[in-house]
Amino acid sequence: MTAPRSLILPRPLPLDSGQSLGNVEIAFETYGDLNAARDNAILVCHALTGDQHIASPHPVTGKPGWWERMVGEGKPIDTARHHVICANVIGSCMGSTGPATVADDGAPYAMRFPVVTIRDMVRALVALLDELGISRLHAVVGGSMGGMQALSLAANFPDRAARVLAIATTSRHSAQNIAFHELGRQAIMADPGWNGGDYYGAAEGPEKGLAVARMAAHITYLSEAGLTDKFGRRLQDREAKGFNFDAEFQVESYLRYQGLAFTDRFDANAYLYITRAMDYFDLAEEAGGSLAEAFRRSDARFCLVSFDTDWLYPTSESRHIVHALNAVAKPVSFVELSAPFGHDSFLLDVPELDRVVEGFLG
Amino acid sequence: MTAPRSLILPRPLPLDSGQSLGNVEIAFETYGDLNAARDNAILVCHALTGDQHIASPHPVTGKPGWWERMVGEGKPIDTARHHVICANVIGSCMGSTGPATVADDGAPYAMRFPVVTIRDMVRALVALLDELGISRLHAVVGGSMGGMQALSLAANFPDRAARVLAIATTSRHSAQNIAFHELGRQAIMADPGWNGGDYYGAAEGPEKGLAVARMAAHITYLSEAGLTDKFGRRLQDREAKGFNFDAEFQVESYLRYQGLAFTDRFDANAYLYITRAMDYFDLAEEAGGSLAEAFRRSDARFCLVSFDTDWLYPTSESRHIVHALNAVAKPVSFVELSAPFGHDSFLLDVPELDRVVEGFLG
Repeated sequence: MTAPRSLILPRPLPLDSGQSLGNVEIAFETYGDLNAARDNAILVCHALTGDQHIASPHPVTGKPGWWERMVGEGKPIDTARHHVICANVIGSCMGSTGPATVADDGAPYAMRFPVVTIRDMVRALVALLDELGISRLHAVVGGSMGGMQALSLAANFPDRAARVLAIATTSRHSAQNIAFHELGRQAIMADPGWNGGDYYGAAEGPEKGLAVARMAAHITYLSEAGLTDKFGRRLQDREAKGFNFDAEFQVESYLRYQGLAFTDRFDANAYLYITRAMDYFDLAEEAGGSLAEAFRRSDARFCLVSFDTDWLYPTSESRHIVHALNAVAKPVSFVELSAPFGHDSFLLDVPELDRVVEGFLG
Repeated sequence: MTAPRSLILPRPLPLDSGQSLGNVEIAFETYGDLNAARDNAILVCHALTGDQHIASPHPVTGKPGWWERMVGEGKPIDTARHHVICANVIGSCMGSTGPATVADDGAPYAMRFPVVTIRDMVRALVALLDELGISRLHAVVGGSMGGMQALSLAANFPDRAARVLAIATTSRHSAQNIAFHELGRQAIMADPGWNGGDYYGAAEGPEKGLAVARMAAHITYLSEAGLTDKFGRRLQDREAKGFNFDAEFQVESYLRYQGLAFTDRFDANAYLYITRAMDYFDLAEEAGGSLAEAFRRSDARFCLVSFDTDWLYPTSESRHIVHALNAVAKPVSFVELSAPFGHDSFLLDVPELDRVVEGFLG
């Protein structure tokens, strides 16, 4: 059912920084058949630490794909009817070109990799679609950073997607969003194992710093109420407080595990580059300060979904996007769903989300 | 006007862990005269990284005392009428006994220092009051961790304060509160300079880890709206994005500065111990699971203040305390103030807070 693949883009990729990136490899997976009219393709864009393994096991962890619940035969993104494409973004570390990629001189790029933007990631995805012979998507879909890419594609390639579904996302990173990312970057860069980004092949890299960065991010993905429901003040494997600095509370143990597990599957430099891209994201800025202008040329139908417990990209951010779309008379539907899981709701068991996705994609 | 002092408690301090701590030094300052009846004393309890320098310059930074706006002649906590006492908590690093203190064997305690609790801190404060001959306070006052101490004093020493003013605080640390603290502790412990806590006298300590911990905490002290007002997405000293990993955005520059400046004035091990004490704080647990029971023996009047933008200890936490006080028929007033500064509002220019404090203390 899955076909893991990659290809090299035939042309250098122009970047927002003014630089360009040559020999760009894009790793991607597809599910379901492309029809003869080539008009049933759905591009799913992944989030910060996501990858192309949307509905097939992760090659490192062996865990199920990150959106198995959403993508497959008879599922809301139905591979019996649609050709689903998911590609690793540039700057990441799961096969597409990023800081861990070996450059022309035979050494990994490391911090010589150019700073990329969400729009650069989208340029690479559109170049991939060109190679695949898909001129117009049935839909582009994404949650969180994936939603940013979906919106950026609509704004910058206005005729390439008939439908845009953006979930739990924003049109620009807020000061608080930037602050949390900067905290993570500083945690990585404070780790002597980071070594200015040159740690590839070293016995020890910046695993500890990366784990701390992941812990910080993880807190922002969950709601306060969700954390309380899941862990409260319960102690981990003990009856009484030990008066020490072990992971005494379940929530501490959980965070330590999340931090540690992440370092097995993710590259610290990629984390720096992708968070930077997200912080730079400001769709209105790209259109002279007007978010509505950013969408003026789009001919897509839009659907925005937010979650009531998401404090990373709260409902007000989606509403801001809806208002901009309204201002240029674009067809848009918008729903705030109730779910206890905070920002992570888009990845979890929220049956209402399934119905919204299925209904919008048709 | 100020008299910086310290004294050694005459008896070992019993701790919640079952251990006891000998030769406990308490560093404190007083402002205003104690009257003949010895009944005009107000104990102000400081927050996590606070100290006894409430209304006099900080000895390291030279900055004004942390509550100069509140404490002084003619100010809401009026030193013309009240004798104000502020002492450094045990476990801290500004003169009271903590992990940086040299133990009996001539070496700093470091991680041999016993884990202390908020109640242990309060025991030390009450022992200080005993030494000063103050049997009953006119009031105990505190914000954040200072509020925890004020509540703990009311619960555990129910006849020692006539008034209890607890601002921007909670009766127990939530899972999210614990998570942010654990993140900070892991950042410190991940720093090789921490060296298991044995860094005193070393050329380099865990300054980088401590700075990351402070950055994380600092984000929680501010509101999303406050950060947006203060920084938004404005760039720091530049016209356009530089496409690099410098502190491009003002909010990044601000956070880096806050992290770095903190390491000049605070001890990393003290940060570990005090955050641990806060995470352990659960007044209801001390009273068999009932917060109302914790307050049953108190004969104080209470005043609770919260801020509408405080997401660290939101209004619901204060309301929870008020409900418990109501359940045991204690006199309590409660106000949620509107202020844009998030949790930090209790330290900043909120004229309504001044009026509440002045009115309650009489």
